[in-house]
Amino acid sequence: MSEKITNEHTVWHEPTVHQKDREKMNGHKNCILWFTGLSGAGKSTLAHAVEDNLHNQLVRTFVLDGDNIRKGLCKDLGFTDDDRTENIRRIGEISNLLMQAGVITLTAFISPFIKDRQLVRQLVNEGEFIEIFCDASLEVCESRDVKGLYKKARTGEIPEFTGISSPYEKPENAEITLNTDEMGINDCVEKVIEYLMERGMLDNLQ
Amino acid sequence: MSEKITNEHTVWHEPTVHQKDREKMNGHKNCILWFTGLSGAGKSTLAHAVEDNLHNQLVRTFVLDGDNIRKGLCKDLGFTDDDRTENIRRIGEISNLLMQAGVITLTAFISPFIKDRQLVRQLVNEGEFIEIFCDASLEVCESRDVKGLYKKARTGEIPEFTGISSPYEKPENAEITLNTDEMGINDCVEKVIEYLMERGMLDNLQ
Repeated sequence: MSEKITNEHTVWHEPTVHQKDREKMNGHKNCILWFTGLSGAGKSTLAHAVEDNLHNQLVRTFVLDGDNIRKGLCKDLGFTDDDRTENIRRIGEISNLLMQAGVITLTAFISPFIKDRQLVRQLVNEGEFIEIFCDASLEVCESRDVKGLYKKARTGEIPEFTGISSPYEKPENAEITLNTDEMGINDCVEKVIEYLMERGMLDNLQ
Repeated sequence: MSEKITNEHTVWHEPTVHQKDREKMNGHKNCILWFTGLSGAGKSTLAHAVEDNLHNQLVRTFVLDGDNIRKGLCKDLGFTDDDRTENIRRIGEISNLLMQAGVITLTAFISPFIKDRQLVRQLVNEGEFIEIFCDASLEVCESRDVKGLYKKARTGEIPEFTGISSPYEKPENAEITLNTDEMGINDCVEKVIEYLMERGMLDNLQ
């Protein structure tokens, strides 16, 4: 006779599969690669380029960015200070879940406030939150202005635009700093991959 | 000379790694296994048991349940109708992200309202949302009362408790129905795994 769920001895809700089991299966450790910086500093470009490199090494990855967050999970949020903070809080929580699910999670959000980034760091274990500062000058970002946002910020069409009318608080102790005024994409990607390798994050890849 | 991010020809934000690429790497397709039913119907127990079985077959999985959602992403939400709907909406959005990240996502929430479950179904492609109705009678669920919640609902200590003072809307066309009054855990797990195999979801496992 098969055991019934009604049998009190078979009632259990605790997970039997943990992050460590997934890391073993996948052959790599998990972490959050948190890209932060001004609009136009290269966050999204670099997150996707690093993902591409990792995927080719059979690493499980996922990029969270405005495209898949603002249109979905956070579509109820605007751009007030409170909403920005709630936005980053939710992104932190999902990043944590994705990481537990065995995925190296790359996030590409301006995330201008130190306290919000700190909050995400505190959600996870030491070494699992890797802050990557895309350090570009306002001048260079504004001159790129890929999406035409700086122009709108200067005319006041977009209020509270980071770097123009709202502050960007630089990371004080980012794990990795990429000077994207000077460095090319390949060099930036290499620096991130080297960081992961030096810490044994990719050690058991087949 | 390495390419600069400032070079307009190298600016790209589109993902180069897609769900299909991850499915190919992992050797299985992705979906959301959405367990629904009364408190005590076996949702969480079964979600973890199915995960355990899949993990042993080298399938990438993750369970979302009250434990990792209500304490984290949805800790700002209560139990009003609006908050319940928002809770399920967010769970749907995360499930979708986890699925795109290459993970078979199992969710274990009462999710009593048809319209809320329908909303999640509409987020994803056809065949990716697999509704699993844990069909247990109120009598059996109440007699188990693992967490003592039914007792509190009967005394009114918990208001709006599904099945007692708030409705549970049964699925009309669930992909899988498990009569957990009668079936044992192993039989339930087998039925879910068979469903996935028949649809070729696990076809390329090594």
